[in-house]
Amino acid sequence: MQRRGIPLGFKCVPASEVKLEKMEETGAEGIRVRWLIKKEDGAPNFAMRLFELQPNGRSPLHSHSWEHEVYILKGNCKVVCEGQEKKATAGYVVFIPPNLKHQFANAGKSTLKFLCLVPHHR
Amino acid sequence: MQRRGIPLGFKCVPASEVKLEKMEETGAEGIRVRWLIKKEDGAPNFAMRLFELQPNGRSPLHSHSWEHEVYILKGNCKVVCEGQEKKATAGYVVFIPPNLKHQFANAGKSTLKFLCLVPHHR
Repeated sequence: MQRRGIPLGFKCVPASEVKLEKMEETGAEGIRVRWLIKKEDGAPNFAMRLFELQPNGRSPLHSHSWEHEVYILKGNCKVVCEGQEKKATAGYVVFIPPNLKHQFANAGKSTLKFLCLVPHHR
Repeated sequence: MQRRGIPLGFKCVPASEVKLEKMEETGAEGIRVRWLIKKEDGAPNFAMRLFELQPNGRSPLHSHSWEHEVYILKGNCKVVCEGQEKKATAGYVVFIPPNLKHQFANAGKSTLKFLCLVPHHR
């Protein structure tokens, strides 16, 4: 793949320069996301997103056919998976296998930030 | 996939609990790695690793058929890709496309830590 004759594409930028978008999905509250590395960057297999949840923010309680690979950067997270509930703080790693019902919620008073990687599925 | 009758497997642990292994590859200096999420965890597509480079540590200058999706957690990194050289600090995102010659080096005086995700390739 080429972009103006330059191969797509070594990328090295501060995450803060990547657009911060509101997550509009049903059941999502107080969540914004930066798609740090995506298909359009030339990524052949999976995408890296950075989520920011405000206090009381949460993702939908849902399941889907793809997995999540998560790393908590900042804040306090409540992770729910198939009825199990765990706390995760900065430096925690979370793996949600495909097809399990899961939710991420901000369990603290400051912004929660985590990376969440998914295989391309759309 | 099952492990003793329990579906593989929701995981939520501090990264520090995952084994820290020396990287023995030719050209690697002062690098250790934690395989945070891997095939054996049930991850169907890609693996999450956390690298720790001591001052003067570096990865091999090499290329391969798979991509790297990287997020810098701590420290100062020099990233080389096809002769281009960039600096990256905490909060930087780096994408190395497949088949480009690349290297990560600690450009600071403290430990450099970054996540590096790769599709399963072994």
